[in-house]
Amino acid sequence: MPEQQLRILINQMSIEEKISQLLQLAGPFFEGSESQGEITGPMEALGITDHSIRNTGSVLGLTGAKEVIQVQEAHLKNNRLGIPLLMMADIVHGYKTIFPVPLAIGCSWDMDMAENTAVIAAAEASAAGVHVTFAPMVDLVRDPRWGRVMESTGEDPFLNSEFARAFVRGFQGSDLTQDRSRVAACVKHFAAYGASEGGRDYNTVDMSERQLREYYLPAYRAALDEGCEMVMTAFNTVDGIPATGNRRLMRDLLRDEWGFDGVLISDWGAVKEMIPHGIAAGEAEAAYRAIQAGVDIEMMTPSYEHHLKGLIENGQVDESLLDEAVMRILKLKHTLGLFDNPHRGASIELEQELILSETHRQAARDAAAKSCVLLKNDNVLPLKKEQKIALIGPFAQSGDILGPWSWMGSKEEAIQVYTGMVNLVGSTNITTAQGCDIETGTEAQLAEALLAAQHSDVIVLALGEHSEMSGEAGSLADIRLPQIQLELIAALQSLNKPMVAVLFNGRPLDLHGVYDQVDAVLEAWYPGTEGGAAIADLLYGRQNPSARLTMSFPYSVGQVPVYYNHFNTGRPQGAPDAQVRYVSQYLDIPNEPLLPFGYGLSYTTFEYSEATISSTTMTLEQPLTIKVRVTNTGECTGEELVQLYIRDLVGEVVRPVKELKSFRKIILEPKESQEVTFTLTEEQLRYHHSNLEFKSDFGDFHAYIGSNSRDVTELKFTLTK
Amino acid sequence: MPEQQLRILINQMSIEEKISQLLQLAGPFFEGSESQGEITGPMEALGITDHSIRNTGSVLGLTGAKEVIQVQEAHLKNNRLGIPLLMMADIVHGYKTIFPVPLAIGCSWDMDMAENTAVIAAAEASAAGVHVTFAPMVDLVRDPRWGRVMESTGEDPFLNSEFARAFVRGFQGSDLTQDRSRVAACVKHFAAYGASEGGRDYNTVDMSERQLREYYLPAYRAALDEGCEMVMTAFNTVDGIPATGNRRLMRDLLRDEWGFDGVLISDWGAVKEMIPHGIAAGEAEAAYRAIQAGVDIEMMTPSYEHHLKGLIENGQVDESLLDEAVMRILKLKHTLGLFDNPHRGASIELEQELILSETHRQAARDAAAKSCVLLKNDNVLPLKKEQKIALIGPFAQSGDILGPWSWMGSKEEAIQVYTGMVNLVGSTNITTAQGCDIETGTEAQLAEALLAAQHSDVIVLALGEHSEMSGEAGSLADIRLPQIQLELIAALQSLNKPMVAVLFNGRPLDLHGVYDQVDAVLEAWYPGTEGGAAIADLLYGRQNPSARLTMSFPYSVGQVPVYYNHFNTGRPQGAPDAQVRYVSQYLDIPNEPLLPFGYGLSYTTFEYSEATISSTTMTLEQPLTIKVRVTNTGECTGEELVQLYIRDLVGEVVRPVKELKSFRKIILEPKESQEVTFTLTEEQLRYHHSNLEFKSDFGDFHAYIGSNSRDVTELKFTLTK
Repeated sequence: MPEQQLRILINQMSIEEKISQLLQLAGPFFEGSESQGEITGPMEALGITDHSIRNTGSVLGLTGAKEVIQVQEAHLKNNRLGIPLLMMADIVHGYKTIFPVPLAIGCSWDMDMAENTAVIAAAEASAAGVHVTFAPMVDLVRDPRWGRVMESTGEDPFLNSEFARAFVRGFQGSDLTQDRSRVAACVKHFAAYGASEGGRDYNTVDMSERQLREYYLPAYRAALDEGCEMVMTAFNTVDGIPATGNRRLMRDLLRDEWGFDGVLISDWGAVKEMIPHGIAAGEAEAAYRAIQAGVDIEMMTPSYEHHLKGLIENGQVDESLLDEAVMRILKLKHTLGLFDNPHRGASIELEQELILSETHRQAARDAAAKSCVLLKNDNVLPLKKEQKIALIGPFAQSGDILGPWSWMGSKEEAIQVYTGMVNLVGSTNITTAQGCDIETGTEAQLAEALLAAQHSDVIVLALGEHSEMSGEAGSLADIRLPQIQLELIAALQSLNKPMVAVLFNGRPLDLHGVYDQVDAVLEAWYPGTEGGAAIADLLYGRQNPSARLTMSFPYSVGQVPVYYNHFNTGRPQGAPDAQVRYVSQYLDIPNEPLLPFGYGLSYTTFEYSEATISSTTMTLEQPLTIKVRVTNTGECTGEELVQLYIRDLVGEVVRPVKELKSFRKIILEPKESQEVTFTLTEEQLRYHHSNLEFKSDFGDFHAYIGSNSRDVTELKFTLTK
Repeated sequence: MPEQQLRILINQMSIEEKISQLLQLAGPFFEGSESQGEITGPMEALGITDHSIRNTGSVLGLTGAKEVIQVQEAHLKNNRLGIPLLMMADIVHGYKTIFPVPLAIGCSWDMDMAENTAVIAAAEASAAGVHVTFAPMVDLVRDPRWGRVMESTGEDPFLNSEFARAFVRGFQGSDLTQDRSRVAACVKHFAAYGASEGGRDYNTVDMSERQLREYYLPAYRAALDEGCEMVMTAFNTVDGIPATGNRRLMRDLLRDEWGFDGVLISDWGAVKEMIPHGIAAGEAEAAYRAIQAGVDIEMMTPSYEHHLKGLIENGQVDESLLDEAVMRILKLKHTLGLFDNPHRGASIELEQELILSETHRQAARDAAAKSCVLLKNDNVLPLKKEQKIALIGPFAQSGDILGPWSWMGSKEEAIQVYTGMVNLVGSTNITTAQGCDIETGTEAQLAEALLAAQHSDVIVLALGEHSEMSGEAGSLADIRLPQIQLELIAALQSLNKPMVAVLFNGRPLDLHGVYDQVDAVLEAWYPGTEGGAAIADLLYGRQNPSARLTMSFPYSVGQVPVYYNHFNTGRPQGAPDAQVRYVSQYLDIPNEPLLPFGYGLSYTTFEYSEATISSTTMTLEQPLTIKVRVTNTGECTGEELVQLYIRDLVGEVVRPVKELKSFRKIILEPKESQEVTFTLTEEQLRYHHSNLEFKSDFGDFHAYIGSNSRDVTELKFTLTK
């Protein structure tokens, strides 16, 4: 159904029918939904009529083939023009087979793996009737207080962009119309939601437009370049105006400058939230600002439904804006093939077959193994099967390892750490005790743990935050582990045994009380359904840790924000002529994070040869080649992540001390070596100048090669005409 | 000497002579300086020739009538055209008679007092040969980690503007040429230095231009409106370009838009710091960017000296830019009357007479009493003379109460707390012990303190940060009192006696371990030369505390930044329909600071009548009148600070939940009451719209009247045509 036919359809629609296409309501509103009754209260509160529901354009969070089919069928019966519903849901890191949280997937630096998690999530969700997922979330993040850092892939605009593309490819595939195992992607949250002030969710965002364009926008743009069908607005303000009502951001930049013609959806309730934000006196004004900005779908509030007609009738809003929005929504339905097959991939049989299939579980297990970051290892890992292990801690036997945004996942299906270890090496050598709960504990629990650990060779501590301590609205001012867990570590230290901490959490933590107290730290994040199996694989060396941090671990919360791609300042610490006092520093802590971007250990070691550069001058036509030979100098096969950073020494505006430009994962057997070659072009040196022009500067640059953003060797080159 | 004559003088100057007018060097460079020899090393490192020194335009940090006169006389002998030196120095909160730090003066909300401190500082400094002070610092501050918050008057743009004006009036008087007891003021640090990221000094600043104009610029502008002669550049970047080389900020905004034609000086070394900032490849480029931006004087680096001639000769810089800068400097010398009397106020006799005179000391004592904020008082203050007091803590007998930027002050001249108390009530009832040092302590010290406190009726704890823990380059990531002092409090608690904490510090602290542990808290900041006397006055009720916080005390460092004039967000905590989880909040701490802006207690109590408003509608022509009657309901005379805030309920961009618009200090005797009347005009409702236009919106507003930004009553009005 080409655009012309959709135009004919729109012409048949009444203004009310058109407006209702812009409404998105949760599943329970709809006939055929199995939890239908529950919504009566809120439904009345929303002031939604049956007529609205019969003409609603899309549904939020309804999944399960049976129910989705029922709702769609009932809807098509009731809808005058037979326009099918779009089924949208938050499928963020898996549908039923839960993969590691995105921040963990980010640490894999593995685009194929990331894409594959999205392929599997799409397949399961599509079979369950979902058409659109509200993912990927690609917000750049620098503040670990913010609970939603777990949804992002980290602090680097280039890496986030790569992941944005990978996730979009995975969700959407190459032919969304034909391939019903895929879902449309909706990149979020446009824009700069990750910069919420104070790390407090939904809080104000303020930055210069150059900062916005240089660091925060690239990943959204990358998703769109990859063909992402939808965009979701952010809750926050951008330069004083909530994103959802921000005409300059949405209409001028996203639509006109970037040429995005897909569906723009508000985040949950964000249209009406313009009222508390204080830029709309009421729903009518909120509707006005949203439609002017170019928001097509209003999620879960009825401002359009109640006021768009009036606004059009009194001439404040041109009906063409409404028609535009309806056209985009219908086009998406067309792209998804819903006019031909309104049930699309929904299939009770396929759902059964795919969900938590062995293949999917195996993929989840591999993804988790590739996402856990080994942060420290003083000769204690990998464990040996014959060692007596005491597995202690609130996460030893917990299914709460799926993380936030795994609402369709089942904690009961999750492989717990204890189970994973026993499955791998048997139960003979493993004792376990909880030690404490996540935030509280008793003397008895502690005594039990001490007893369990007494005759062990190694203590493995499974510690962390419960999953509600991060995620949406999960902001924390204190980012240490809960005090009771620090006390547990301290108590077990008295046994003088090697200790390994496995951490479950959705943000970089302040690791005081952990890092120096134990011999090894494995950052497991929320590893998903197969978490315990993957952790066992890693602890026992069946897999070799290869993940690398994509967000700095701060020294303490008082250091926030801390990120590798910061500016040098005019008084950098450690400069040759730096004074003792009058430099940019804290008096009480280092400037450097505890663990930098790109950091992570392996069970083997790698040696880098001196890096070579093909020329000390680059021209617009002549790229550079940088080579380094990496050798596995350890005892086991391992993966090394070779990272390439640059620094523009003199910019028209200040430039970061390092910027990631490329990276390469290589697998090396013991003694094996491999030459890694990077090509660096002028295009990679471009940035936003003070007039927002995106271009490079002639002049001197550094290139850095290394295994993380801190430990690098430096090369010099000059960009000339 | 009108401009025409100065032009003739400039025409007589060689290009080298003109360039050297732009140089500022520290005192020891100059013949006649008594520490002259010491500089040889750095002088050589700077590459400054004798010729340069003979033609230098201004001197940094040289004070003392005798030496200044010597240097000026030697200079005039050596300078071909007899152009006198400008003597500049950081006279921030007093010269020898040290007043409370500006953050403390801010808490007085007393413009007459603030002005008077500047009058006295100017009189002493002027007699000591100073012509220009690098004050006031009017940077808006929101991050207590930043050590220079002690130099600011706080987090409110309106209040900072009022203080900016008061300080400028005090320093400059109404006729700088005639009144030799005054000094020219130099407002700093232009612009937005207070927003250093992470509260780390000299760090990057980034914000939208609207944010800059709405919150950060007003206080600088106010100083200029008051006639402030000079402006100092900030160390930080503004939208990616260091302020000192920021043409858009300096030439376009400060010079062209605001019409500032006074002298613009770099901060110490800031021209050359463009190299580490990474926007200049070397000194020449730094000089180029600074002169293009309109920086007249380069402080302590020789980029102009070495490169300006070459830049002019090769045509990169127009000589008119140099002439402009020289003209501004010569004009300032003319304004200060230096061509007629190069020694201006410098007088060995007057210096002797004024410095630390009884009048000045009394003013310092009054200022301190008006600046200490009573944060808590559970029926323990004021003390009674007959009570046995144990004065414990590292500040009990310390002269380190002058604070940063009191370099000419003498700790030996400072009245210590113990001395102040003994002077007031005699030594019979006062025992004292140190308890611990500021950051360390011994068991013996603790034992001594416990012994000293054992038979007391009340324990007064004098605690705090040593003065190097704040001020320039004094950033801290942990803003609690040092651990040893918290332990001292905890140990003394075991005696079960009433405890009063008097705090000496340069920033809002996280008061965990203090606030709940003691019965009264007096925030003394760094109270200056007469600090101990003023604190004794307050503790014993000879003065009644009247100060109010101008910067929020955060709940913890993880809450930073926290400030009263924040935005509401789309999901405010506590809204009638707010959810339990999905609101903007931290899970582990409140959103509210421990102590809000405007907060402070008195020994008496005040009752507010219901406030009345003259009309519920305001028009452009018709202001509103708001009235409230305040009654002293306590037992002693006291000062109340009645505060008026507004909120614009619907803006074109988001507006703060409260904005201070007016305040009134009233003194009331017991039972006395007084009606306070505020006039509110349309002009006070203006703000920067998204297109940066400064105007008001028709629509609904709230007005709030109360004793601090939290405890207010609400009135409603509408702005109509």
